[in-house]
Amino acid sequence: MTIEIRPIRPGEGPALLVLTRALAEAHDYLDKYTATAEDLERALFAPDPIVGCLIAFCEGEPAGCAFWHRSFTTARGREIMYLEDLSVLPAYQRRGIGRALLQKLAVEARQRGFPSIYWLTMGWNAKAQGLYDQTGAVHDEGMRYYRLADEALIRFAEARP
Amino acid sequence: MTIEIRPIRPGEGPALLVLTRALAEAHDYLDKYTATAEDLERALFAPDPIVGCLIAFCEGEPAGCAFWHRSFTTARGREIMYLEDLSVLPAYQRRGIGRALLQKLAVEARQRGFPSIYWLTMGWNAKAQGLYDQTGAVHDEGMRYYRLADEALIRFAEARP
Repeated sequence: MTIEIRPIRPGEGPALLVLTRALAEAHDYLDKYTATAEDLERALFAPDPIVGCLIAFCEGEPAGCAFWHRSFTTARGREIMYLEDLSVLPAYQRRGIGRALLQKLAVEARQRGFPSIYWLTMGWNAKAQGLYDQTGAVHDEGMRYYRLADEALIRFAEARP
Repeated sequence: MTIEIRPIRPGEGPALLVLTRALAEAHDYLDKYTATAEDLERALFAPDPIVGCLIAFCEGEPAGCAFWHRSFTTARGREIMYLEDLSVLPAYQRRGIGRALLQKLAVEARQRGFPSIYWLTMGWNAKAQGLYDQTGAVHDEGMRYYRLADEALIRFAEARP
């Protein structure tokens, strides 16, 4: 089995869409997935992009991805890397592709001068946590994730101060 | 009591440092706070910054801040806003400054075309949650936050694949 992992190239937005939609399906938010391949390529190949992506190919077929964005920590006063989506298609799981993607991402983080990578996972996702715990990452539990979006954002922005 | 909230200006890095260090102290990570005022200003006033900050002044004195960075969601294929630090100095708390900062941030998010703002808070921080719940934001609990940093990042990047 040949696995190749490399940065995404122009024209591969449709493959990325399949990979990130698979993750949305597994996490039960496919109904909220509205992005198009063009949206993703526009962000990835912008002049000064804030996002990046590695794609894993298994025997030449897209099998997984690690999609990240630039982030920033005030405590360190530096840019860091946030891993937004780590996806391996069900048919390609249990072959070490997730770990290989994470490791290539760690190499890329170092090349870009990011001192750390961080990400979130659902408390119920024991399979992912098993992988993450092997990387040497530390974790905190019990975070609460807030989201003020769309109509709620508009209402609050326009509320009486 | 006069409260003014506006974007940070060059030269106000030292004030921002005081505000974000106060948050680090309240959350018990001041020992990990290594940023300087210069680090923060360099990021804020870069040619194409990924960060931004609102400062609240109370009777002309810096009283709080909302420091954010650009983020991205694959599900929507769009940039969104991440609130990294919301800080109000202890002496200025309970005067509505936190809510006022959040509301100005919501206005700024709309002006910049971000469809949502998201942020994290500690499960134990009931005081902050009381404020957040009033904004109309929704939340998920039980997230696990992973961080692969510094020596651990280097070890993993250099590990045998």
